[in-house]
Amino acid sequence: MKPKTSRIEPSRYAKRMRNDEGTIHTILDESLVCHVSYVLEGQPFIIPTAYCRVDNTIYLHGSVGSHFFMQMAKGIPVCIAVTLVDALVLARSVFHHSLNYRSVVAFGTTRLVDDPAERWMAAERFTEHVIPGRWNDARQPSKSELKKTMFIAVEMEEVSAKVRDMGVGDDPEDMDAPVWAGLLPLQLSVGAPQQDEVQSGVPVPEYISQYKR
Amino acid sequence: MKPKTSRIEPSRYAKRMRNDEGTIHTILDESLVCHVSYVLEGQPFIIPTAYCRVDNTIYLHGSVGSHFFMQMAKGIPVCIAVTLVDALVLARSVFHHSLNYRSVVAFGTTRLVDDPAERWMAAERFTEHVIPGRWNDARQPSKSELKKTMFIAVEMEEVSAKVRDMGVGDDPEDMDAPVWAGLLPLQLSVGAPQQDEVQSGVPVPEYISQYKR
Repeated sequence: MKPKTSRIEPSRYAKRMRNDEGTIHTILDESLVCHVSYVLEGQPFIIPTAYCRVDNTIYLHGSVGSHFFMQMAKGIPVCIAVTLVDALVLARSVFHHSLNYRSVVAFGTTRLVDDPAERWMAAERFTEHVIPGRWNDARQPSKSELKKTMFIAVEMEEVSAKVRDMGVGDDPEDMDAPVWAGLLPLQLSVGAPQQDEVQSGVPVPEYISQYKR
Repeated sequence: MKPKTSRIEPSRYAKRMRNDEGTIHTILDESLVCHVSYVLEGQPFIIPTAYCRVDNTIYLHGSVGSHFFMQMAKGIPVCIAVTLVDALVLARSVFHHSLNYRSVVAFGTTRLVDDPAERWMAAERFTEHVIPGRWNDARQPSKSELKKTMFIAVEMEEVSAKVRDMGVGDDPEDMDAPVWAGLLPLQLSVGAPQQDEVQSGVPVPEYISQYKR
């Protein structure tokens, strides 16, 4: 990971910056969806999409017929963001309300992945990113399915994390206000598996019934 | 809302497009965080941030000292995305794995809000977007707090929603594979309120203890 430059220099809340690899990788490995922005004729676009991380590289995949992926196949600059919300921060004053969150913003240039071994590795890591244990259980991709899929790699040239994980920060003069103050924790919870109604006789595997994010 | 143009025309999965106002507003009103992209010297940037919606307008707020908000004060094109993940879609084949999700992508131009009444309205709606009932309970913003806060409005010139809310879609030849198939529902759940440790004697209000997203 390269040192920070102006693209990731914070103008505010410098104390929320966490640029250690461990924090960045943990956030990237927890979220299911990232947001990718790119520029087309001066106009910013965002696409929410699935992804996975391998070392310092983010992989994206999509249909070879997708306009977005056709743009990315050319090798274009992108900015990729991942955000996890952990709590509402309910201060005594409206002004000090906040969210506890963990986010990563990464900059890089898209690269079309054409090496078959890298494509296969990315396919496996995509599946295992979403649900570990699934790759060796489900029917793996066929040649024709792989042909329809484009893989894009984005080596993170610059990347930073921001984390707010504190309690409320009210002003001294508000501390005795009769307003409930504290955190309201939020997290992604997993419901009961809903089996495909046309399937019977296949028990739910532990990697699904015990799934946590 | 204007008719769709090339910025929101889908290249794939046209059946997932939902361009009715009700769907778009429901998604925008449920999420806590949006991702805003903008262009600076040809480079795409994304900032995750809080927001609220009023009619066809998305409001953003931040510090008057934020570089991002200083850019937006100039009136620049932005793309704003909101994404909610509802389930893992676990097909028999890896290729047909998917997520159930609801997303909105909106395009517009930033406008600095300088009318005091519109700023006050936005401040209230921000608070009520995050947690209804809070605005009339917490200490409302002072003049000096408002002075430090910039409000940006983005009228949605073009906007579209995408929704996947179906079961698994496997190929006929995979239907008898002994691989568990179905949905694994995901949702944001709310933990027990954690009161500020220096506060006592203030009961938790119902709008906090009963909070749902």
